[in-house]
Amino acid sequence: MKGTVGELGEFGLIRELTSRLTTTPAVRLGPGDDAAVVAAPDRRVVASTDVLLEGRHFRRDWSTAYDVGRKAAAQNLADIAAMGATPTALLLGLVVPAELPATWPLELMDGISDECQVAGAAVAGGDVVRGDAITVAITALGDLQGRRPVTRSGARPGDVVAVTGWLGWSAAGYALLSRGFRSPRAFVEAHRRPEPPYAEGPAAAALGATAMTDVSDGLLADLGHIAEASGVSIDVKRAALDVPAQMTDIGQAVGVDPVDWVLTGGEDHAIVAAFPAKAKLPARWRVIGEVLGAGAGPQVTVDGAVWEAAGGWDHFGAPAG
Amino acid sequence: MKGTVGELGEFGLIRELTSRLTTTPAVRLGPGDDAAVVAAPDRRVVASTDVLLEGRHFRRDWSTAYDVGRKAAAQNLADIAAMGATPTALLLGLVVPAELPATWPLELMDGISDECQVAGAAVAGGDVVRGDAITVAITALGDLQGRRPVTRSGARPGDVVAVTGWLGWSAAGYALLSRGFRSPRAFVEAHRRPEPPYAEGPAAAALGATAMTDVSDGLLADLGHIAEASGVSIDVKRAALDVPAQMTDIGQAVGVDPVDWVLTGGEDHAIVAAFPAKAKLPARWRVIGEVLGAGAGPQVTVDGAVWEAAGGWDHFGAPAG
Repeated sequence: MKGTVGELGEFGLIRELTSRLTTTPAVRLGPGDDAAVVAAPDRRVVASTDVLLEGRHFRRDWSTAYDVGRKAAAQNLADIAAMGATPTALLLGLVVPAELPATWPLELMDGISDECQVAGAAVAGGDVVRGDAITVAITALGDLQGRRPVTRSGARPGDVVAVTGWLGWSAAGYALLSRGFRSPRAFVEAHRRPEPPYAEGPAAAALGATAMTDVSDGLLADLGHIAEASGVSIDVKRAALDVPAQMTDIGQAVGVDPVDWVLTGGEDHAIVAAFPAKAKLPARWRVIGEVLGAGAGPQVTVDGAVWEAAGGWDHFGAPAG
Repeated sequence: MKGTVGELGEFGLIRELTSRLTTTPAVRLGPGDDAAVVAAPDRRVVASTDVLLEGRHFRRDWSTAYDVGRKAAAQNLADIAAMGATPTALLLGLVVPAELPATWPLELMDGISDECQVAGAAVAGGDVVRGDAITVAITALGDLQGRRPVTRSGARPGDVVAVTGWLGWSAAGYALLSRGFRSPRAFVEAHRRPEPPYAEGPAAAALGATAMTDVSDGLLADLGHIAEASGVSIDVKRAALDVPAQMTDIGQAVGVDPVDWVLTGGEDHAIVAAFPAKAKLPARWRVIGEVLGAGAGPQVTVDGAVWEAAGGWDHFGAPAG
């Protein structure tokens, strides 16, 4: 595919984009009509929208179009999993400049489509318009398979807090990239292409998770959302956190406490949940803390104290009370 | 509400936006969690995404934020109706510059919310990010209530073609605005705030419509989509079109054949459908043409001849054959 988006034209681009898609039985009617039709077997649909902007959420010199597609899809599909649902379909709203090489949106779509396949979903429809800034607006849909949605508001004092997936890897990769490094690759790749543990969301719901969210703003910030919505406090045990030796090495090299990445780094899309203390958690879940009464107000602490650091913590704002 | 989006802050803006929303029983879980949960009573969900950009799809000096919201929601909700479905919910992805007055996104949301109410739907969730260009990405969801979705591909030779809603009004309003006029108000208002005939989509499905679409690109262009998808040709009878006397007056004033607006003007979001010839159409549907065999290839004609004009026709491209 040679030339620019402008040379290919709007209908030409849409034709090329849709020709690259695979589908699933859940997509009853795919792209090309006024709307798509997607199966919703349990008479409810879970739906989430996110918008990614070039410059703010991705950089073309740091990530390939394919990786941006993987990441954009992963971010939305993780939101579905974090409700305890299985992703079914995704819709894409795309803004592309006329002078953009046509390969860019096509490789973006390959990334989106491949990430959908990882999660068991498929692209069902979308819209493409020309504009100055590359904008990727994704809506993901999912199926609860008869389960209750696991919101942020059900955590109760006495619950354990557990996490599955990666924490801090994307932040460490970002720290490397922003200092001009391109390795160690595992961390750089983690920033470019997160790997949310999709299947663990529905599994956690089946295990009785009382509250759940994906870690997009940083562990403390996202636990803060659960604390606030549930009217509880949450204490994280620093010793329970997994800080890989290589992450410690990177931290020393760039002058950052790697625990800060684990606690405040977002974008890995790990899944964190509260479970009744008696729940038998599978090996992929790591218990990292406990749910406490709200006391003077909902807050998140690390070993009993407010974590003093930059990063995702700002999103949470000051603890109440 | 004083100040800018930047002064209000991301979380402040989201709080203000969600505080303005009304809801419906179909929205089982609204904004504030990782994802929304929306009822899908017949085990399927209809979903459509559209992206609107300032400058390309709306102008702040021509339309208020409220009107942009009404129009953005209407455009998506009409896509749901044109499948024969009833709109249930809408998700909003919004890009706003930091220096934008905070009243703008709030009034936009009022418009979106009010248009949802007209269609029987509610805002279920969304995402707000800061960026340079105002971008409104909307995903609408709907329920088929057990009906077969009416696609673009089922039109058969012998069917009649009928339309409901307004045609050419938005184009006439655009012609007025682009020449600096602000009246006649009915046409200017039609451009700022279309009124899709939401209820007629499901009604047409129940009446046995074989193919259906909303008129967003222009009647001929959108009939072209049906002709191509169905492998048929469609002939429109010029004498059957409704060209109001006032539209003729405007056409004379600005030097445009008003029939051109009716045939090629988009954005009114009328609904056009093919029906079996024996279908008893209610008074709100106007028969404007017939479905023919494809002959040398699918095409749309007016009184048997290709319509020679600018506008929406370009979108369809050259007739095949």
